[in-house]
Amino acid sequence: MIKEIFAKLEGIYPELVDFRRDMHMYPEQSHHEEKTPEKIAEFLKGLGIEVRSGVGGSGVVGTLRGGKPGKTVALRADFDALPIQDEKDVAYKSKVPGVMHACGHDIHTSALLGVAKVLSTIREEIPGTIVFIHQFAEEATPGGAKFMIEDGCLNGVDMIYGAHVMSDQPFGTVTVREGYVSSAQDDFKIEVLGKGGHGSQPHTTVDPLVTASQLVVNLQQIVSRRVNPQQAAAVTVGSFMSGGANNVIPDKAIIKGTVRTYDAEVRDIIEKAMEQITKTTCEAAGADVDYEYVRDCPSMFNDSEESKRVEEMAKLIVGEENVTEMDPMMGSEDYAYYQQEIRGVYFIVGGKNADINAVYPHHHPKFTVDERSMLNIGKVFIGTVLNYLSDGEIKPYGK
Amino acid sequence: MIKEIFAKLEGIYPELVDFRRDMHMYPEQSHHEEKTPEKIAEFLKGLGIEVRSGVGGSGVVGTLRGGKPGKTVALRADFDALPIQDEKDVAYKSKVPGVMHACGHDIHTSALLGVAKVLSTIREEIPGTIVFIHQFAEEATPGGAKFMIEDGCLNGVDMIYGAHVMSDQPFGTVTVREGYVSSAQDDFKIEVLGKGGHGSQPHTTVDPLVTASQLVVNLQQIVSRRVNPQQAAAVTVGSFMSGGANNVIPDKAIIKGTVRTYDAEVRDIIEKAMEQITKTTCEAAGADVDYEYVRDCPSMFNDSEESKRVEEMAKLIVGEENVTEMDPMMGSEDYAYYQQEIRGVYFIVGGKNADINAVYPHHHPKFTVDERSMLNIGKVFIGTVLNYLSDGEIKPYGK
Amino acid sequence: MIKEIFAKLEGIYPELVDFRRDMHMYPEQSHHEEKTPEKIAEFLKGLGIEVRSGVGGSGVVGTLRGGKPGKTVALRADFDALPIQDEKDVAYKSKVPGVMHACGHDIHTSALLGVAKVLSTIREEIPGTIVFIHQFAEEATPGGAKFMIEDGCLNGVDMIYGAHVMSDQPFGTVTVREGYVSSAQDDFKIEVLGKGGHGSQPHTTVDPLVTASQLVVNLQQIVSRRVNPQQAAAVTVGSFMSGGANNVIPDKAIIKGTVRTYDAEVRDIIEKAMEQITKTTCEAAGADVDYEYVRDCPSMFNDSEESKRVEEMAKLIVGEENVTEMDPMMGSEDYAYYQQEIRGVYFIVGGKNADINAVYPHHHPKFTVDERSMLNIGKVFIGTVLNYLSDGEIKPYGK
Amino acid sequence: MIKEIFAKLEGIYPELVDFRRDMHMYPEQSHHEEKTPEKIAEFLKGLGIEVRSGVGGSGVVGTLRGGKPGKTVALRADFDALPIQDEKDVAYKSKVPGVMHACGHDIHTSALLGVAKVLSTIREEIPGTIVFIHQFAEEATPGGAKFMIEDGCLNGVDMIYGAHVMSDQPFGTVTVREGYVSSAQDDFKIEVLGKGGHGSQPHTTVDPLVTASQLVVNLQQIVSRRVNPQQAAAVTVGSFMSGGANNVIPDKAIIKGTVRTYDAEVRDIIEKAMEQITKTTCEAAGADVDYEYVRDCPSMFNDSEESKRVEEMAKLIVGEENVTEMDPMMGSEDYAYYQQEIRGVYFIVGGKNADINAVYPHHHPKFTVDERSMLNIGKVFIGTVLNYLSDGEIKPYGK
Repeated sequence: MIKEIFAKLEGIYPELVDFRRDMHMYPEQSHHEEKTPEKIAEFLKGLGIEVRSGVGGSGVVGTLRGGKPGKTVALRADFDALPIQDEKDVAYKSKVPGVMHACGHDIHTSALLGVAKVLSTIREEIPGTIVFIHQFAEEATPGGAKFMIEDGCLNGVDMIYGAHVMSDQPFGTVTVREGYVSSAQDDFKIEVLGKGGHGSQPHTTVDPLVTASQLVVNLQQIVSRRVNPQQAAAVTVGSFMSGGANNVIPDKAIIKGTVRTYDAEVRDIIEKAMEQITKTTCEAAGADVDYEYVRDCPSMFNDSEESKRVEEMAKLIVGEENVTEMDPMMGSEDYAYYQQEIRGVYFIVGGKNADINAVYPHHHPKFTVDERSMLNIGKVFIGTVLNYLSDGEIKPYGK
Repeated sequence: MIKEIFAKLEGIYPELVDFRRDMHMYPEQSHHEEKTPEKIAEFLKGLGIEVRSGVGGSGVVGTLRGGKPGKTVALRADFDALPIQDEKDVAYKSKVPGVMHACGHDIHTSALLGVAKVLSTIREEIPGTIVFIHQFAEEATPGGAKFMIEDGCLNGVDMIYGAHVMSDQPFGTVTVREGYVSSAQDDFKIEVLGKGGHGSQPHTTVDPLVTASQLVVNLQQIVSRRVNPQQAAAVTVGSFMSGGANNVIPDKAIIKGTVRTYDAEVRDIIEKAMEQITKTTCEAAGADVDYEYVRDCPSMFNDSEESKRVEEMAKLIVGEENVTEMDPMMGSEDYAYYQQEIRGVYFIVGGKNADINAVYPHHHPKFTVDERSMLNIGKVFIGTVLNYLSDGEIKPYGK
Repeated sequence: MIKEIFAKLEGIYPELVDFRRDMHMYPEQSHHEEKTPEKIAEFLKGLGIEVRSGVGGSGVVGTLRGGKPGKTVALRADFDALPIQDEKDVAYKSKVPGVMHACGHDIHTSALLGVAKVLSTIREEIPGTIVFIHQFAEEATPGGAKFMIEDGCLNGVDMIYGAHVMSDQPFGTVTVREGYVSSAQDDFKIEVLGKGGHGSQPHTTVDPLVTASQLVVNLQQIVSRRVNPQQAAAVTVGSFMSGGANNVIPDKAIIKGTVRTYDAEVRDIIEKAMEQITKTTCEAAGADVDYEYVRDCPSMFNDSEESKRVEEMAKLIVGEENVTEMDPMMGSEDYAYYQQEIRGVYFIVGGKNADINAVYPHHHPKFTVDERSMLNIGKVFIGTVLNYLSDGEIKPYGK
Repeated sequence: MIKEIFAKLEGIYPELVDFRRDMHMYPEQSHHEEKTPEKIAEFLKGLGIEVRSGVGGSGVVGTLRGGKPGKTVALRADFDALPIQDEKDVAYKSKVPGVMHACGHDIHTSALLGVAKVLSTIREEIPGTIVFIHQFAEEATPGGAKFMIEDGCLNGVDMIYGAHVMSDQPFGTVTVREGYVSSAQDDFKIEVLGKGGHGSQPHTTVDPLVTASQLVVNLQQIVSRRVNPQQAAAVTVGSFMSGGANNVIPDKAIIKGTVRTYDAEVRDIIEKAMEQITKTTCEAAGADVDYEYVRDCPSMFNDSEESKRVEEMAKLIVGEENVTEMDPMMGSEDYAYYQQEIRGVYFIVGGKNADINAVYPHHHPKFTVDERSMLNIGKVFIGTVLNYLSDGEIKPYGK
């Protein structure tokens, strides 16, 4: 069965390319998506798939109910673009000044629509339900995932899979890992409010610059003393701004930073310690403080068993030698919210191809990927979903 | 004798006001003084005083040799202006856009010329020599004092006196103190050169922000441990700039600050400790460092015996109740260079007068002082110089 | 075959108890073992096993060459006792004042001799060679493992297994884990050599107490900034001694601590950073330093595949429900040296039994364990060794 | 008049030597003085002086009312001994094992009694009242001064003078200074109460050693940032004790130290900052704290005008060349309590004389001074008191 489905997917490749290039020409920034979700909803409706629009904002959720009873699995693709000026020299270059699909979300969306199209043709044979989550505003903080979940997009869903094309991973490859894939990301901003004065008269001031320096030093003890050495955590101050003149003690110092953790308990410990250390360090100096700590994305955890399934499927599809262990990701991805709720797997599909100049990093004005990566995303989605719903019975042929 | 001299000074007050207002209308910035020294030199030459121009740059030194043998005493006034737009509403407002005598140097210069004029009339009776040091570029770093001294303006001089009019001290008063009057000022700039990276990967970086924070904390030990508790010293970091983004470890951190000391040995100790602590703290983290430490003005020390002389003369001139102890000054004054070489006294003459709106701080666009302060400067100069040269014999009458 | 061997082991249980109690009555401290190795060697020789005594000091290595060709596997037991006074009230209480088998090494040794005895009876059928490593001085630093390895005890050995009885784990259970089992342990001692003086005269001193405090604070940056957040590491200062009087700045400060790591590269990074930070922090203050950093035990790593083998064998022997994942160990164990050289597995066998008061912690004067743990150690050794040498063919019957 | 009085004092020198040697043979430790005050009281009563015993404990206050009206001046001498074994080889060596006049208080007492004796002979001519304060327990903390003041010994007193003989200052000399003579001394003891644990498990602990180190570092900011750079202050941690083993995080850390200041406001600022920084630094780490801050001696301030009087009198008595400026003292002296209440002067009289081996430091088992220093103390006391009471009329003859 899968052999035919994959053939169908390849058959509609030109249509996917068209959809993708259209998206590419008319990108819409996070939280400003209007036309894109309409096009997606229209496409899904055309397949006879149940569609709910405006999910959590402008998300689109399609539900394909198979002809046989079974579990419910979700697939997710994001569709927002970035505030970057497209500098590629191609016919389908962005027509919107200063906005560009520079992260591959057009690839994700088109690939998932292709999956929906071919699976809708075998609906009767599918033992379960497939939910297509087309998410808005992945690049924003907070992103659309949170809102779509709150609006019920995971209701009744047993398992979820997500994929990302990457321009620094060769086309034709797939990477996946079990366990933590990306860390939770929290951000903090601390304004130490002292009292300025002349540099020769420190006793008339409350020196916020020394206090903030002391604070940066004290914060090192969170990772060194408060966190279980066997747990990963990073507390980084990325910005320190205070004063300007040599001889004037400034009124305030502003430090900003980020906290990265995998384990939820460690995240709680750090959040609590940050506040405790910040407030007391400022109090020690007699300074006031404006303290903000914002939880952004949670950490992303790939289910162990399901990661093995994706790995196995991918090996059958792209060849054993083309599937390797994914490195934990640096950046955050709001897909993590889904896997905080239910089990799932997030994997990477290669899009790098020097022959077509697809070598620029994500968020680069010349970013692009090999469009055939849509087929690889689609096949791994299809293979994994059917294998999962059939409890391992359905497997792709070897490549 | 002094009674007559003071009367003569009062007699030429209109001339001094004219000279001062002319200077005020045609101010020249530090290191750009051309016309001003010419006018001064011309005035002095007109009195039959020996004049050397271009001293150390554009300084003017007049030498009045008394008719009797004796010691040599110098009096100093500065003549440069500031890059400030004059916003006063007076007829003699600055005619040079963006340049203004906003610190009273026009007062100092005119007062000293008045002193020269009246003393030149009693030349035969003076037991010694009087040197008139008209200094350029007091507001610059380094200022003109250093260059004029290198060019010999203190050669053969036994004693020096200097005065400053102050807009925050009531007209009619004089303040003076023995011992340290102002601190030495040194400035430093430290660039901690690390290696940036992503905030979640500190081990791949050399974090300059944490290192600079550590450095700021370590520098506190200079004053707390390295300096004799009985000696005054301040080491202040006034500026800390590093990074900008929450989640990126920056490449470098730049801190700037100032060091204030009175004692020369303490100054040496701090300069050495600054370098030692900075270099080793950076080395501890594996960071490189660009380190600059610049000695600006030395501290200014008023001779004990001579301060008493100035105090005594001032009391006779402006009344005992109008002479108080001067607070040590915050800002630096390059007159300090003279008293690093020879004994001397620096004193303050009040110029504040709310009736004429002379209440703005120095360097303010509306700064002004009571012009009669020229007479007070002049009288204290004359009284002190004659008392000094006559070994205490000549004293002013009581007021 | 295994069924009979296990029956044989059970049959000689009284002999093992006798041997164990004899050892228990005549314990010998680390590096002072004389009679114990003689008894072990004699026992092994009596079985017709090749024996090499005095290995690396007082170690004993027995080699049982099977009748069929195959791989070589080693089993290790330690035989030294501790400087603790036995306070148990049993007939076989230690007869040596102040020395006691308070860690269960007598159990390990007797169990391994039992294994040797029963395996020697089926020598002809064994496809490979079994090396019995009886190690001295496990409790010392450095322990006997290092010396026995240097003296060749692992030459030609392909795989090694080791076991420890634990009084805090219920009798009848086995625990094992793949990956890191215990951390590497390094110790440091830092003497900050300053210059003392009166507390009111800090400038005449080099304050070692402030410098050492600064150092403790700086050391926190090793874990927070130098170590990959995904790698486990602890740098702990456990002791800080300086001065004594309120008002005297002391001559020196002594701090001592420990470093725990799993990964060898992280260990190197920390060792280097410790020295760099220590030396520069002292240099910053103008203090000298005596710095010692001693590498003790390496970390212990259980081979992934072989851990699964031990787990599987143990489940067959003591029941699936009695085999759980072992927690990483806190204390160091010099068995780690063996697995630094070759692949292997270290596992724990429960010895706790409240009915016989076997509940005291290791190194306690009343420490004891259920002696039947010897049978469990023996059976897991036998089962694992035969399974390994037969490439998985030989398996124990289910319990 | 003074000429005769001085002659009288010299005349009773043998009696003073006897009194002093008797005291020396029968020393009594601080707070255990019984016989000494009795002997003093008896001596004073014998002169017809009003005596109050048991003042503030075991102090003795004599009041000599002059025949003419005038001001009231006090003179003070201390009479307690130290817990030191006398190792001198002289006939009048201490007869009390382990107790010794090793600081010269016997000299002070005998000198003051001599003063009382000779002044009592001219009682009728004295224009005012002289109070003889014989103080107990100067070496204790708190010393007797505080208690005697509370018991009224300064009631009605206008001025006070005190003297100390010093074995490191040549016999025949006197030193005095105006302004601060010795600093205030406060002591602190801080127990940081954390939660111990194994060195490899910092997250299960509250590490008091790191917290105390952080605290020591933070405390440096008191002097560097909170205290006016022109004010003297030292905050010294003299003792840091925590833990003992390399690999165990201890339960607590104890630090002890001292604070030295001159200015009362600075003392208040530091006391407040110490508590603020200590409590918040411990709170930052989640540690508890036992905090003690004890004010010992205040700073001692010599009145400016009166110091000049003592200096002038001393120059007339011992010769101008033998009177120099006293260095500020390191150690504390509870005489400071008197001058906290009323104006006064404390001065030093030399006792060093190598010819008689009077060269050992104070508190040394072989400490001694030239006994003729009693005459110098006595003469300066007499000269100063009479000059003060006569408003400068009475002056000693030149030496």
